[in-house]
Amino acid sequence: MNTFGTDFRVTVFGESHGPCVGCVIDGIPAGFTPDFDLIRSDLLRRAPHDFWGTDRREPDEFEILSGLYEGKTCGSPLTVIFRNRDQRPHDYSSYFARPSHADLTAYVKYAGHNDPRGGGQFSGRLTLPLVFCGALAKQMLAKRGILIGSHVYSIADVCDDPFDPVEASLPELDSSFPLLNAAKKAVLFKLLEQAKTDRDSVGCVAECKVVDLPIGVGEPLFDGLESNMSHILFSIPGVHGVEFGDGFGIARMCGSEANDAILRDMRTKTNRSGGINGGLSNGMPLIFRVAFRPVPSIGIEQRTIDLQSGEEAAFTVSGRHDVCILPRGLVVVEAAAAIAILDLLIRNGNSRYD
Amino acid sequence: MNTFGTDFRVTVFGESHGPCVGCVIDGIPAGFTPDFDLIRSDLLRRAPHDFWGTDRREPDEFEILSGLYEGKTCGSPLTVIFRNRDQRPHDYSSYFARPSHADLTAYVKYAGHNDPRGGGQFSGRLTLPLVFCGALAKQMLAKRGILIGSHVYSIADVCDDPFDPVEASLPELDSSFPLLNAAKKAVLFKLLEQAKTDRDSVGCVAECKVVDLPIGVGEPLFDGLESNMSHILFSIPGVHGVEFGDGFGIARMCGSEANDAILRDMRTKTNRSGGINGGLSNGMPLIFRVAFRPVPSIGIEQRTIDLQSGEEAAFTVSGRHDVCILPRGLVVVEAAAAIAILDLLIRNGNSRYD
Amino acid sequence: MNTFGTDFRVTVFGESHGPCVGCVIDGIPAGFTPDFDLIRSDLLRRAPHDFWGTDRREPDEFEILSGLYEGKTCGSPLTVIFRNRDQRPHDYSSYFARPSHADLTAYVKYAGHNDPRGGGQFSGRLTLPLVFCGALAKQMLAKRGILIGSHVYSIADVCDDPFDPVEASLPELDSSFPLLNAAKKAVLFKLLEQAKTDRDSVGCVAECKVVDLPIGVGEPLFDGLESNMSHILFSIPGVHGVEFGDGFGIARMCGSEANDAILRDMRTKTNRSGGINGGLSNGMPLIFRVAFRPVPSIGIEQRTIDLQSGEEAAFTVSGRHDVCILPRGLVVVEAAAAIAILDLLIRNGNSRYD
Amino acid sequence: MNTFGTDFRVTVFGESHGPCVGCVIDGIPAGFTPDFDLIRSDLLRRAPHDFWGTDRREPDEFEILSGLYEGKTCGSPLTVIFRNRDQRPHDYSSYFARPSHADLTAYVKYAGHNDPRGGGQFSGRLTLPLVFCGALAKQMLAKRGILIGSHVYSIADVCDDPFDPVEASLPELDSSFPLLNAAKKAVLFKLLEQAKTDRDSVGCVAECKVVDLPIGVGEPLFDGLESNMSHILFSIPGVHGVEFGDGFGIARMCGSEANDAILRDMRTKTNRSGGINGGLSNGMPLIFRVAFRPVPSIGIEQRTIDLQSGEEAAFTVSGRHDVCILPRGLVVVEAAAAIAILDLLIRNGNSRYD
Repeated sequence: MNTFGTDFRVTVFGESHGPCVGCVIDGIPAGFTPDFDLIRSDLLRRAPHDFWGTDRREPDEFEILSGLYEGKTCGSPLTVIFRNRDQRPHDYSSYFARPSHADLTAYVKYAGHNDPRGGGQFSGRLTLPLVFCGALAKQMLAKRGILIGSHVYSIADVCDDPFDPVEASLPELDSSFPLLNAAKKAVLFKLLEQAKTDRDSVGCVAECKVVDLPIGVGEPLFDGLESNMSHILFSIPGVHGVEFGDGFGIARMCGSEANDAILRDMRTKTNRSGGINGGLSNGMPLIFRVAFRPVPSIGIEQRTIDLQSGEEAAFTVSGRHDVCILPRGLVVVEAAAAIAILDLLIRNGNSRYD
Repeated sequence: MNTFGTDFRVTVFGESHGPCVGCVIDGIPAGFTPDFDLIRSDLLRRAPHDFWGTDRREPDEFEILSGLYEGKTCGSPLTVIFRNRDQRPHDYSSYFARPSHADLTAYVKYAGHNDPRGGGQFSGRLTLPLVFCGALAKQMLAKRGILIGSHVYSIADVCDDPFDPVEASLPELDSSFPLLNAAKKAVLFKLLEQAKTDRDSVGCVAECKVVDLPIGVGEPLFDGLESNMSHILFSIPGVHGVEFGDGFGIARMCGSEANDAILRDMRTKTNRSGGINGGLSNGMPLIFRVAFRPVPSIGIEQRTIDLQSGEEAAFTVSGRHDVCILPRGLVVVEAAAAIAILDLLIRNGNSRYD
Repeated sequence: MNTFGTDFRVTVFGESHGPCVGCVIDGIPAGFTPDFDLIRSDLLRRAPHDFWGTDRREPDEFEILSGLYEGKTCGSPLTVIFRNRDQRPHDYSSYFARPSHADLTAYVKYAGHNDPRGGGQFSGRLTLPLVFCGALAKQMLAKRGILIGSHVYSIADVCDDPFDPVEASLPELDSSFPLLNAAKKAVLFKLLEQAKTDRDSVGCVAECKVVDLPIGVGEPLFDGLESNMSHILFSIPGVHGVEFGDGFGIARMCGSEANDAILRDMRTKTNRSGGINGGLSNGMPLIFRVAFRPVPSIGIEQRTIDLQSGEEAAFTVSGRHDVCILPRGLVVVEAAAAIAILDLLIRNGNSRYD
Repeated sequence: MNTFGTDFRVTVFGESHGPCVGCVIDGIPAGFTPDFDLIRSDLLRRAPHDFWGTDRREPDEFEILSGLYEGKTCGSPLTVIFRNRDQRPHDYSSYFARPSHADLTAYVKYAGHNDPRGGGQFSGRLTLPLVFCGALAKQMLAKRGILIGSHVYSIADVCDDPFDPVEASLPELDSSFPLLNAAKKAVLFKLLEQAKTDRDSVGCVAECKVVDLPIGVGEPLFDGLESNMSHILFSIPGVHGVEFGDGFGIARMCGSEANDAILRDMRTKTNRSGGINGGLSNGMPLIFRVAFRPVPSIGIEQRTIDLQSGEEAAFTVSGRHDVCILPRGLVVVEAAAAIAILDLLIRNGNSRYD
């Protein structure tokens, strides 16, 4: 359903053009002081503010409804909402299913009772509370020394350099458009400008790195790191692929090339495994990539059907949309990862008998 | 933990060289008659029997411990075990962490109390009960007309043809080595022979297709099809990447190319989305690919450490291993997919108010 | 944690004197039209308005934050909040643990970080969203013909008549003070008046009856009706006992007296089992009783400690409190029961293979 | 379903006359050495060996299928089975629903596909694996100083003395028939003999006491101690009521009598609350009582129906049954309590932020 996690548990609610979006975070230990400036900074990273972002402008101000007392978590679930201000009513003269959106599938699943405005509960706006939760989770991880970073790995067919897989630290990156190879910025901007001019959109890949995770985080079989992380990563709208370490690339290697030799200090010489063996962290940087489809809302005429009549029609998505979901999506990817990792980190505390 | 699913729920247990591996399947509706010949046929697909498979030979006979009465499910959890016969004791003179296995991570997580024999609970042998569950799930899906097929998409850098993404049927394939382009068999066999000669292993990608899934299967946000399917797919040992539809490839496209135009009968013209929009099935074939690393056990000397002394050492994995996890792994991928899909199919029955 | 249910799932949040209390209801089928007048009527039953009720007066107005579209459920979780208006700050000059409240236990559990105002998250105010959920669940049950009723079974040592255990209908009762034997009203009022005069409180027992539940609702072993119902009933503050059918009384009988003979139409002659056998409904009225302790807040001096200094002190709870939690608590008991039953009713749909 | 618990999770399977009964225990920390003599001693307490117990004699030998390595838990789920030896086939000439058993309800729920032999999955034999789990849980609790004891509180209308509610220790009791007032033994035995002579059965109440539980165990709202404990206690066949502390008795008191004054050392003067406030342990002994119905299998003719024809018939349960479920049931009650408490104890470790 709309809940993720076992001991650190997130429930997300809301629709794109309903009163609000929000979430309930259960299982936060009492006595933690959230840094709201850091949270706001992450929310700002998610907000569109560049030429390639959607024109929908929301202040993204949040209201804490429960769970805090005198600035600290108090053992009660933390609830937060973001009011939707830039609401638009639904135009019923026709009800076109936007291609590659959830309009058709939600309409059939819910027998026409779904909220069709802006995708309803299937809207990317639901990632807003996710970023809030993730910012909180990142703070709790950071207190234990665990840091998460990300960059624009690729847009269309232009790639940034990859993260150094063995270096146990995160590089300082330009937060507005994080690239490891700053020289790629010009060509990427040109790509985005061209897509905007074409009223089209472009796909992209985010890469993420988590450092200083202790060895052994992850639960056996069904609750390994990749299982839980991919579960929440694929809940981000538009995600079509998730890979860890050398991912699909490792499937082209032979074992002698793919294996990571183990060194005296329990580190590995290479890190093709991406910091995970058997679903458990191995102490090396955790590396993964997330593939996003191009935003399906484009300003170009498409063929679709009117859900009410069933008739085919030519149709153009009106108004505002993102040309590319990156770099906005990076903070969402970090958030999802942080939530899954924090839950497993808490659970890892029960692995051994003392 | 070791349980997956909400309404159709699988709990897997056992270790590679303990008494057995097995599972408890809860939530099976009463009155279903399992076809054990079909189950045995799937177990046989998982068993190694070609030159590139491991030499460990287990009869893979199962014993039903509960849940059946007069050949039908009786509303009680179905429990099944497979005795381990080809057990080997652990050699304690040294305890080398096999590179890219879970030896090191399990050792640290469990403070040395894990069962080290053959990877213990992290062994690929745990996929045996998974195949049993999957074969059962596939039968229940088939009764509703939903079929699952798979093929060897690639080994190392040699690719088979992909599944036709829009055709609503599954091709007849040679079950011992399923390929869409049979002409690729020779070059793939040569690859496998070379790897065996080199005492090395090779990575590979499985592709899977599910047809006749009704529209709307999948739950919102955290329980979409991709989330639940990737969750269980990544629990298969050696999986490094999962992608749906055009996957990482769609991240290189622009929206006008990636979007699937919707036709009058609710089908789409193309199927780059892989049969899923917003986490819900859209009625088109569900297509996904799973990347497997090369089997980490190879007959070539590697560098690692002795977990007890912490000292580095040269080390060669002795004995039996697979050169390539495909085609054996195909039936495991199908099983995992079937379990996740059946659970969501059952849950989908509660989406609408009647 | 703060979530109950499997397929119909309720998450409750808030603190007594924080911004609000509320809940997220997940798993509501789409297309259901809540009757808000019925919900308001249940909220009003929970509100104190008689001389024996607390003086805290809250309007109990709710705001729907998500899950509704054009007056119908839309497949998205339904979120509702009730703002706290009659808030009171915490007086820190001393911090007395009110005897038999959660003040001491919450203080220790959360290392002093809990919200101490009015019991924080352990306040009876959290039953407000529970009544909302329950009113919704009751409507969904009523559409299937399943009705729930309750009455004041006893206050202190004065008992009303019990429900007729075999009659498959609910009597019409005075909703402000439901009694089966109206002649008991005078003596009960006298009891309440005396307790109020004494600035004391009195314990009580609620009895509840559910009619027209189909046979077979309840899941085996750990999810039988009694297990799931008692789970949520004991989460109501002040509940000290739950019994089904003849309950503790049946423990004094012999089997020949206790057994319910089965008649031709699958009804039973007597109903000492309370409508449940083996955790599953048997088609007879479901009958249970819930014992409430006297409200621990009383206007009489008690001995306790100051949590900050650890020193013993004489202490009198100031201000407002209920003399008796019934009849207000009846609607809370009905709500809890309805939530558990609806979840099991939905799950029962998957018991048989079709 | 058939799984209980969050971080310490028990899945029970089997039927009374199927191949076996058993369970999977997930979430046991690695490195724990179970004392199998203590487990066998608890299994023996559950076995019938007195004149009032059933004649069904099973050796109750168990086989560990997974989760142990060199005598210690290894981080993998622990699976155990008990083979059923004294199996009896089902006589199909007629299929009488035994009154107050689950025969009728299971038959309807599962459309006749349930295993009818000895109640199938609804048999009391399923408490055998529960006692195994409980014995393990008790050992893990005992390592932290937490002890559980129980006695025969009442049989029919004859009561033993109650546990001392404030004394922080457990009395030494005769394990074969634990009574606080040994003088009651004669009258109780007479009661049991009379019932046996009458081929009848008698109801009873178990009382349980848990000492040295630290303050704060239990999770807020839906996962308080009473909620989780009653959940599993009501899954024991025949349980009709559960009460904590003064239970239904406290409902007859006024607040000034019922409240437990708090003393300097955080202990309370009285313990009418039974060691729990707000769902959290308060450091005082945890006291609860469980009411069992008389065993419904009696040697006296009863009225019922033939499930296949629907016709009414006179019917006498043949053969073996218990005259009274106590004292056998005591160890089952202890087991259920221990499982719920251990799970909450583990979860309590995450309450505070460090």
